[in-house]
Amino acid sequence: MSRRLFASDNNAGIHPDVLAAIVAANEGDVPAYGADELTAAALARFRELLGTKVEAYLVFNGTGANVLGLQALLEPWHAVICTDTSHINVDECGAPERFTGCKLLPVATPDGKLRPDDVLRQLRGIGVEHHVQPRVVSLTQSTEYGTVYTAAEVRALADLAHEHGLYVHMDGARIANAAASLDCTLREITADAGVDVLSFGGTKNGLMAGEAVVFFDPEQARRFRFVRKQGMQLASKMRYLAAQYVALLTDDLWRRNAEHANRLARRLADGVRGLPGVTVTQPVEANAVFAVLPPAAIPVVQARFPFYVWDEPRHEVRWMTHWATTEADVDAFVAAVGEAVA
Amino acid sequence: MSRRLFASDNNAGIHPDVLAAIVAANEGDVPAYGADELTAAALARFRELLGTKVEAYLVFNGTGANVLGLQALLEPWHAVICTDTSHINVDECGAPERFTGCKLLPVATPDGKLRPDDVLRQLRGIGVEHHVQPRVVSLTQSTEYGTVYTAAEVRALADLAHEHGLYVHMDGARIANAAASLDCTLREITADAGVDVLSFGGTKNGLMAGEAVVFFDPEQARRFRFVRKQGMQLASKMRYLAAQYVALLTDDLWRRNAEHANRLARRLADGVRGLPGVTVTQPVEANAVFAVLPPAAIPVVQARFPFYVWDEPRHEVRWMTHWATTEADVDAFVAAVGEAVA
Amino acid sequence: MSRRLFASDNNAGIHPDVLAAIVAANEGDVPAYGADELTAAALARFRELLGTKVEAYLVFNGTGANVLGLQALLEPWHAVICTDTSHINVDECGAPERFTGCKLLPVATPDGKLRPDDVLRQLRGIGVEHHVQPRVVSLTQSTEYGTVYTAAEVRALADLAHEHGLYVHMDGARIANAAASLDCTLREITADAGVDVLSFGGTKNGLMAGEAVVFFDPEQARRFRFVRKQGMQLASKMRYLAAQYVALLTDDLWRRNAEHANRLARRLADGVRGLPGVTVTQPVEANAVFAVLPPAAIPVVQARFPFYVWDEPRHEVRWMTHWATTEADVDAFVAAVGEAVA
Amino acid sequence: MSRRLFASDNNAGIHPDVLAAIVAANEGDVPAYGADELTAAALARFRELLGTKVEAYLVFNGTGANVLGLQALLEPWHAVICTDTSHINVDECGAPERFTGCKLLPVATPDGKLRPDDVLRQLRGIGVEHHVQPRVVSLTQSTEYGTVYTAAEVRALADLAHEHGLYVHMDGARIANAAASLDCTLREITADAGVDVLSFGGTKNGLMAGEAVVFFDPEQARRFRFVRKQGMQLASKMRYLAAQYVALLTDDLWRRNAEHANRLARRLADGVRGLPGVTVTQPVEANAVFAVLPPAAIPVVQARFPFYVWDEPRHEVRWMTHWATTEADVDAFVAAVGEAVA
Repeated sequence: MSRRLFASDNNAGIHPDVLAAIVAANEGDVPAYGADELTAAALARFRELLGTKVEAYLVFNGTGANVLGLQALLEPWHAVICTDTSHINVDECGAPERFTGCKLLPVATPDGKLRPDDVLRQLRGIGVEHHVQPRVVSLTQSTEYGTVYTAAEVRALADLAHEHGLYVHMDGARIANAAASLDCTLREITADAGVDVLSFGGTKNGLMAGEAVVFFDPEQARRFRFVRKQGMQLASKMRYLAAQYVALLTDDLWRRNAEHANRLARRLADGVRGLPGVTVTQPVEANAVFAVLPPAAIPVVQARFPFYVWDEPRHEVRWMTHWATTEADVDAFVAAVGEAVA
Repeated sequence: MSRRLFASDNNAGIHPDVLAAIVAANEGDVPAYGADELTAAALARFRELLGTKVEAYLVFNGTGANVLGLQALLEPWHAVICTDTSHINVDECGAPERFTGCKLLPVATPDGKLRPDDVLRQLRGIGVEHHVQPRVVSLTQSTEYGTVYTAAEVRALADLAHEHGLYVHMDGARIANAAASLDCTLREITADAGVDVLSFGGTKNGLMAGEAVVFFDPEQARRFRFVRKQGMQLASKMRYLAAQYVALLTDDLWRRNAEHANRLARRLADGVRGLPGVTVTQPVEANAVFAVLPPAAIPVVQARFPFYVWDEPRHEVRWMTHWATTEADVDAFVAAVGEAVA
Repeated sequence: MSRRLFASDNNAGIHPDVLAAIVAANEGDVPAYGADELTAAALARFRELLGTKVEAYLVFNGTGANVLGLQALLEPWHAVICTDTSHINVDECGAPERFTGCKLLPVATPDGKLRPDDVLRQLRGIGVEHHVQPRVVSLTQSTEYGTVYTAAEVRALADLAHEHGLYVHMDGARIANAAASLDCTLREITADAGVDVLSFGGTKNGLMAGEAVVFFDPEQARRFRFVRKQGMQLASKMRYLAAQYVALLTDDLWRRNAEHANRLARRLADGVRGLPGVTVTQPVEANAVFAVLPPAAIPVVQARFPFYVWDEPRHEVRWMTHWATTEADVDAFVAAVGEAVA
Repeated sequence: MSRRLFASDNNAGIHPDVLAAIVAANEGDVPAYGADELTAAALARFRELLGTKVEAYLVFNGTGANVLGLQALLEPWHAVICTDTSHINVDECGAPERFTGCKLLPVATPDGKLRPDDVLRQLRGIGVEHHVQPRVVSLTQSTEYGTVYTAAEVRALADLAHEHGLYVHMDGARIANAAASLDCTLREITADAGVDVLSFGGTKNGLMAGEAVVFFDPEQARRFRFVRKQGMQLASKMRYLAAQYVALLTDDLWRRNAEHANRLARRLADGVRGLPGVTVTQPVEANAVFAVLPPAAIPVVQARFPFYVWDEPRHEVRWMTHWATTEADVDAFVAAVGEAVA
């Protein structure tokens, strides 16, 4: 019997509509590498959602999307300002440095969100050849802490970045959760807020695999075909990545999945808040719940529901919900926590 | 209505058994990144086929498999001996050089097959710091020309390589076609013949996406988890790559698909041989047919069935068959060629 | 007339003994790339000083020495623990990341010196493929703040590093100043204290150009000939780099130069201490003086003696002495500061 | 007593005028990293010789000059068309691939000189993401075979390159020998002939160490400060590199040295021509002589005058002359060859 996991939203399966799209795409021969009708259809959906001039390139996974999107903006002596908890800084095994050659400039934050002052403090040594040159501000939306930048917050950062000749990259592995949380369009927190390049996440929101690198300025996309191919992220049977995106971007499936996950995260947080020794440590704005637990309770819950300890010294854990999590799953999980801390 | 293409075996769809395996894998939550039962099952199948000690890592695509498999064997000042028509040399946008830092040493061959003398001639400047150091011999099996190395030919190259301290890498994007052609086991032309690292192809033989990097010496695999992750080729929802491989390696589906494709390539070659102005230029040992056509006929056939001109000055074209090609498809294609050259 | 600068010890000229050695080396033809007698003589001197088994390779500059010495120890998914003020982190334009592919893990310190706890806190995610793997602890001796690790401090860090499978790299651009400061041998603070690879600085201590990468374990040097050549740091007319090192390592010229510079830094610090608004901010253990000045005074002094503001917000400046600085130079400088703050 | 070597022009010492310039530069403190008067003076000399708009950056060695000059022109998916005997292809341990990420496209030639047809044949797969994109044509002047491109030959290649959107890089490690051979200005075979970036060699023409990367279009130099620093080729005590170039570019020392070396190479070739079993295999247009010798004679001569066997199977050897070679040296060498083949 299948079990529900709260360790990560990538423990989830494929949404039925997305799987149906894969099955439907399996008809006859089609040209490879994106010269097929489904890839064209996926691009059309991206343009409907994000603007008529966007260029969107499908890749296999989130690390690929982030690294190659950054690559398109960077020379090797540039640097990327990001939070110290960002996925590019912590969870990609150094792939950004390895492939772009660039340094990351990580900033400590209380909640995974950069502020303009954080960016300003990193703008040092500009024009001096001894020092890497900050060129990109990378935001994660929603953040690794399950918090969300408002459109105004993104805009303030983007204005500052652009004023200093920097670009804005958004790691949108969970961009859908952010838009759902803010009840806004995807465009309001990306193109309209000044984002230059977006990793548009799909895998964590119901796809089998597949992310998109979206360029809001087509000029910046000019070289990306080569970046993607040399970056080992060009799928030959592209139709199957494209079919998934067509499904995700049809009838707002992306939003429905994200709203569902967000709602269940709030339900989970509401359920554990008030349990003895349990403190929810971050605003629950997307599909993640961070909490401090009594140390002894952690392995007890993990034995029934595996999850990650985020910060060992603080006994802080992370729980994720996703499109397939049910209310019953959450309630069973909350009950398990309750028993463990009792 | 769907049309059959002869441009590439990656124009094909997903084999029904493979698609069924993807659908069946879509049950509940499972751990990510390969800590799931299907990934364990896939590894067990690889070990049945190739040896109990092999390590097999799933990646997204063929370029990823080749580049990362090579990376595991190379320091940046090493070099890779390969044919000048090899996929790593021609069709991967320089990804091998970019990511390993190494130079390729391409050798011209009449049929896509390296000979021991080709390798010997590249063994220059050994131990001299001014020169890159040959470290890997990379063979493609079946070759880019649709020809096949016999087990004895692989063994002769491997013995020579090992004698000089080099490793043998095999780009097996079409390894199934080679084994089917030779009517031998996969092991006879890999492990038993001295291959060190194998890119085991799936995408061109009925999968949606997915290749495997197989190490015959577990010691060489030791660092590969990091190579794969940093190389942006670690799938989060690994179960779906694994499910495909389990299906492909069950009941010899890999062999049945390849035999079918090979047989139809021979049928195609037999059909066009003898047509006026048509010369089949390579032995048809796998699923590719190379032919010289009267120049004027090429665009006429292409208008009905797109394919690639392989060598413009010689008017040499390439036609590929695959698991889904039918006899009727081939016969229609042969007829089209016949009309064009008439 | 020539002027004395306090901006950097690389503003100095060539020590007369070193220049004489260059002139003396200019006799006839000799083999290139290190196959000459002077290179052998330089290696012999390094072995006298540092141990009979050391391997020492001459390179052009400090960035080359650091990056290539690190390269010899690292795979691309490794990481280097260092201070956030270290030269490799701040002043090499990202060359370490670019060429090794690795991430630096910078640690904030009050005085440019790592402590064991700093290292321990970076030992996270060991063995987990999502995270870079700490592999090297890099110390700067003397530090960028002009402070010095004692032999016991180096040993404590090295023991900890080795216990966890890490190597110790020492950026010894000013290793001579440290040994002079501690009144110890070079060996006591390197080989005997557990250092694995040392950048042995010469340029800042009287050479025209030239640094050495010293390996205390010859096994780790095995691949370095290729690292250096591919790293663009192999000099063809090696005799001239070697001649400089022979001179520097003869009759303790390295120590005499360093003692001189250290003594004048102390004289400078003693001179400014007590001036109104001037605070010396770091222990003056080598040839650097850090001080906070009244903001208005900084440009006044800079107009007469250019130097760097180290920390703009704090109005902290850096002054360096070197082998050629004289007591009169220092006294004139102190007088200039005195006038500016009066 | 010092012996004359014919193995390489980098076996030579420093020309007395150049050494005198180093000694003269050793006066007092000066700013580091090129912010000194000698560096400005060197740039002024380059502009006198090569054009008022050129930008010239000093680096340590020839590999550095070539790799970083190419880097300034290339994206990682680009390719460089060069001869298969070029220094960048054979003698730099793969540094060009390692640092630029790009592929070299080597072309076999009889005499080390590219022809327009060689370039044309490499212009394949343009705009197609599967293939590296040729972006630079790299010429060596004088070539590794001691032959020389005329100004018209360079111009024909440059016109072709520019017509197809490619740049022209010249490895001018021996550019002086070419200009002396052609009795033309440096400008006629570089700027005026369409070269975009030049490695201007000094080490092989009387310097201690030092090459220059010269950009004829300042726009292409825009990013080079960062390329050089990150490429580990920025000298701190730049004045000593600059002083050497000022000397080399004063009173045509560069030309006098090169004419001398060229003349002695002709004398050497004239001397051995006609000896039994000796065939001079390349036109002697610069300071190299290539000859086929009776196999048994080769070690006999090498025992007295070390040199390289260029092509083992053909028994072809290479002999180089330089600024310090004397007529007596050549005559002694010719006599030794004569005795060995007698």
